[in-house]
Amino acid sequence: MALDDARGVFPIAPTPFLDDGRVDAGSIDRLVDFYLGCGATGVTVLGQLGEAPKLEHAESTAIAGQVIRRARGLPVIVGVSAPGFAAMRALTREVMEQGAAGVMIAPPNTLRTDDQIVGYYRQAAEAIGNDVPFVVQDYPLTFSVQMTAGVIRRIVTEIPSCAMLKHEDWPGLDKISTLRGFERDGSMRHISILCGNGGLFLDYEMERGADGANTGYCFPDMLCDVVRLSAEGRREEAHDLFDAHLPLLRYEQQPGAGLAVRKYVLMRRGILATATQRRPAAPMSAATRAEVDHLLERLARHDPRARLEPA
Amino acid sequence: MALDDARGVFPIAPTPFLDDGRVDAGSIDRLVDFYLGCGATGVTVLGQLGEAPKLEHAESTAIAGQVIRRARGLPVIVGVSAPGFAAMRALTREVMEQGAAGVMIAPPNTLRTDDQIVGYYRQAAEAIGNDVPFVVQDYPLTFSVQMTAGVIRRIVTEIPSCAMLKHEDWPGLDKISTLRGFERDGSMRHISILCGNGGLFLDYEMERGADGANTGYCFPDMLCDVVRLSAEGRREEAHDLFDAHLPLLRYEQQPGAGLAVRKYVLMRRGILATATQRRPAAPMSAATRAEVDHLLERLARHDPRARLEPA
Amino acid sequence: MALDDARGVFPIAPTPFLDDGRVDAGSIDRLVDFYLGCGATGVTVLGQLGEAPKLEHAESTAIAGQVIRRARGLPVIVGVSAPGFAAMRALTREVMEQGAAGVMIAPPNTLRTDDQIVGYYRQAAEAIGNDVPFVVQDYPLTFSVQMTAGVIRRIVTEIPSCAMLKHEDWPGLDKISTLRGFERDGSMRHISILCGNGGLFLDYEMERGADGANTGYCFPDMLCDVVRLSAEGRREEAHDLFDAHLPLLRYEQQPGAGLAVRKYVLMRRGILATATQRRPAAPMSAATRAEVDHLLERLARHDPRARLEPA
Amino acid sequence: MALDDARGVFPIAPTPFLDDGRVDAGSIDRLVDFYLGCGATGVTVLGQLGEAPKLEHAESTAIAGQVIRRARGLPVIVGVSAPGFAAMRALTREVMEQGAAGVMIAPPNTLRTDDQIVGYYRQAAEAIGNDVPFVVQDYPLTFSVQMTAGVIRRIVTEIPSCAMLKHEDWPGLDKISTLRGFERDGSMRHISILCGNGGLFLDYEMERGADGANTGYCFPDMLCDVVRLSAEGRREEAHDLFDAHLPLLRYEQQPGAGLAVRKYVLMRRGILATATQRRPAAPMSAATRAEVDHLLERLARHDPRARLEPA
Repeated sequence: MALDDARGVFPIAPTPFLDDGRVDAGSIDRLVDFYLGCGATGVTVLGQLGEAPKLEHAESTAIAGQVIRRARGLPVIVGVSAPGFAAMRALTREVMEQGAAGVMIAPPNTLRTDDQIVGYYRQAAEAIGNDVPFVVQDYPLTFSVQMTAGVIRRIVTEIPSCAMLKHEDWPGLDKISTLRGFERDGSMRHISILCGNGGLFLDYEMERGADGANTGYCFPDMLCDVVRLSAEGRREEAHDLFDAHLPLLRYEQQPGAGLAVRKYVLMRRGILATATQRRPAAPMSAATRAEVDHLLERLARHDPRARLEPA
Repeated sequence: MALDDARGVFPIAPTPFLDDGRVDAGSIDRLVDFYLGCGATGVTVLGQLGEAPKLEHAESTAIAGQVIRRARGLPVIVGVSAPGFAAMRALTREVMEQGAAGVMIAPPNTLRTDDQIVGYYRQAAEAIGNDVPFVVQDYPLTFSVQMTAGVIRRIVTEIPSCAMLKHEDWPGLDKISTLRGFERDGSMRHISILCGNGGLFLDYEMERGADGANTGYCFPDMLCDVVRLSAEGRREEAHDLFDAHLPLLRYEQQPGAGLAVRKYVLMRRGILATATQRRPAAPMSAATRAEVDHLLERLARHDPRARLEPA
Repeated sequence: MALDDARGVFPIAPTPFLDDGRVDAGSIDRLVDFYLGCGATGVTVLGQLGEAPKLEHAESTAIAGQVIRRARGLPVIVGVSAPGFAAMRALTREVMEQGAAGVMIAPPNTLRTDDQIVGYYRQAAEAIGNDVPFVVQDYPLTFSVQMTAGVIRRIVTEIPSCAMLKHEDWPGLDKISTLRGFERDGSMRHISILCGNGGLFLDYEMERGADGANTGYCFPDMLCDVVRLSAEGRREEAHDLFDAHLPLLRYEQQPGAGLAVRKYVLMRRGILATATQRRPAAPMSAATRAEVDHLLERLARHDPRARLEPA
Repeated sequence: MALDDARGVFPIAPTPFLDDGRVDAGSIDRLVDFYLGCGATGVTVLGQLGEAPKLEHAESTAIAGQVIRRARGLPVIVGVSAPGFAAMRALTREVMEQGAAGVMIAPPNTLRTDDQIVGYYRQAAEAIGNDVPFVVQDYPLTFSVQMTAGVIRRIVTEIPSCAMLKHEDWPGLDKISTLRGFERDGSMRHISILCGNGGLFLDYEMERGADGANTGYCFPDMLCDVVRLSAEGRREEAHDLFDAHLPLLRYEQQPGAGLAVRKYVLMRRGILATATQRRPAAPMSAATRAEVDHLLERLARHDPRARLEPA
């Protein structure tokens, strides 16, 4: 399957660490196996919440390689955002040789005008090689770069190797409708639209025409179910499941604070060996931990997968 | 009651307009009566989502005056943020003479350093008069100004007329805990902390020590109930009610797009005569309207107040 | 003369205050007379460095009216930038009735995409009335809004009442060339381009096709001479005079600190009664004052107008 | 000499490239020899204008090594700013092993509060090793991070390995005075303050207590002369020389556009083989080139070093 036809859920994988800060290879295998079991259709590594900037170059390529091998043919996308094209090209080359399906590129937060944004992606595509499929990450809340639907259409139209949009504009529902409208009126070719932003609007994003999710919520199994139910037209079931998770999902989606929550829950679910973040990292407060435990207890009344052994 | 001891819910009032763009005085009365009926303990007008910048000066003071008179003694806070202190002082003087309980001041988005932030509030307090109680609005997502808990303590300590914090940092739960810790260790006097940010974390904010809510969600009756249940220690009931509203609340909290949703629901609830925003305003798409209707239908299964006549 | 054909120098007038903070009407008359004597072809009031946000509404209109009457028919442009269109419209109406030639509108610093910028000016033009000539202020360093030449062309083309560009992008020389190229190739109608940014590149801006200056440097007589010499093709004379002033001009152009320098020199030149800024204002340090005196002494070796009585 | 006692001029070296984009090792040697001949007291490589983000990792370390060896014992500072501490640590280790005197660290543009800034430098210092002297780069115009003098004092006081300030705040003269005042009143230990920002205020920065320059202006020989004349108390001579260069210096200091000017003049001076920038790079327009030639001609009337062979 070409990336521009991708559907389903590509979880954003966190990078597991041992307590002493070393990469935890065992947890990586467990995590990938878990994603496969959930029904994920791909995996994204070294993304914004993968702690990529804390990794040495050799660690980054090793992690990407391990995930690619373990994913048994599922497409793996690797985040290669970097302050310069030289580093971006070097990492891209190495992961594509290892079998990555494509790379994800976030815009530098200095971009302002439409032309700057399109120009940046044109240069990036040329730098990594025009044969490498790439994902545009549209996340104004974090990157301070605002792309109109028209700018995305220019990128898709002018750069053939653009294969996917990681949609996390906020608000962003009408943007999905506009982009799908561009496809229908023939002014833009089809690309895959997978949704991020923690999944906060996944319920209605699916109904607007998104192809699935590309985010790291600690219950990727729920994301897979909601995407599937929605695709099958079982609308209220999709919403019921989504709504049951929304209190925790909203809590995990807090910028900066969310990664600790995500790793903590994945540890409680038995997938990660520890919830450790590599330094520098903000520790999770005792009050936060208690709130997450409370959210899990309440969630367990609706979703048995949240019935976990006491922490 | 002094503002620094305020508790409960101060709804942020939208400004109602007629279809032709004129201020809708009838709806203002209805809105205030509705707030009183919900159990609100105060009202805030001309806030960020009150379309204040679209109002002529005379309109602003007229609206403030009408709300103050209609509120039968409940404290009314008036947003007076302005690019210069002259306009801020002029509006403050007029609304205080009409009986306002205090004013709310947002920081200009050019402030960066701790000293700049504290200095700005010191100058603002001097400009409006040191006897006028004011509310600090801490909303980095919208204003791009980041205040640490330490900076808020400096403002509270150095400026006696600071009476309240409109807390809408995000994430912000640990910040409430830190501020209440400052009070307990005697390093900061008590102020009222009311929570904004659309109410997205009101459930846990109350448990962290907040005094209530100061936001404009289209079901202020729910906000009042959650604050009351939480204060009474009926924790799970508070969460149950909050969680039932969370899908709609999250939808309404979308920056920019949320005000249209808020006015639309208040119209469907029979409180506003129209959902009109004064120009310039983004119209609500048909898809958005259908989604809001869907959210209301789903909410009605848990909260009968959402059982509305068909649109 | 229509504003879109304006040439020469429109000084940006500072607002003179007495030591007690009141507006100094006597100095306003002296200032306008001085501009006329220098050969100015217009005047701009209530601009970015006119301390407009510190003025009460009635003061703003009084100042604009006084300058208009005193300018004996020279076109006067009034800064009307405001956070909302209601205030912008109200001020515009009043100053146009008093005889202003047009208004200047800066973009709010939240604008990002090309469409947002064009849309803002379209709405502003509609709000103030499509018959009111307006100036687009292109000053990314201060406003954080980046307009490409293409966006300016869209504004000029789509909004007939756009009459002038206050050009202060930085760097900006090639932008002037591009805009004049648009005029030559017929893709944009002619507008006046007057240069701001303290005049830091006025020497070459004139050679790229600018029509003159629109800035507040404390020697507007020099600006008038440089514009005239350049227009007459006396290139090296223009540069010689400009270069002699560049050390002081650069010093005055410091963001934030420059206004104090400007007012101090205008006071030393006998035009303003005091160098007072209305509060809040950063005082000029003793070291700064000594440096300005030193710069004036050095300048006096080249330009006798800088030979001032001891401070 | 320890870095915290450094005086004189540390030119910011551009990275020379051949027309085909490869690093030009011959020009690097010529450039370092030229700096030594000018009287430079150190060199900084891989800085903001050294095109560091366009270099592969191996190229960066090779360039640093070559400059260190060629500089015959002069201290060489290496820019190691990176989005993550892992890459920063890796590059630091390699260049310190090759004999670098220290490293320069720019703040990421997401830092806002005082605590965030101090915390970032504390973590960076720990990451690179507490025995590695580092330079704090204070350049708000480019990095959008505002450090008060108090914050710099906190960094210097809390982190012993902080050795130097690259001062390029703007305006920044009073900041130098404040920092030197901190030293005099005993509240801050001494560090070296070298000035950047293209040298635009070097004349008065020296008089405020700066130790020299740390910038890449295309006449480092002038910078060395001005620093020496100023240190010798030959004030008017220092200003005369500085003022003669100011028109060109101002032109070169244009953000984004300046590097092309710098490389072009260094090529015309026979030091760089080409003016090539590695892609992506904005080409210098013909009009710009003509203006630079004109500025050089005019400068040559005052400084014979600007008498160059025709381009």
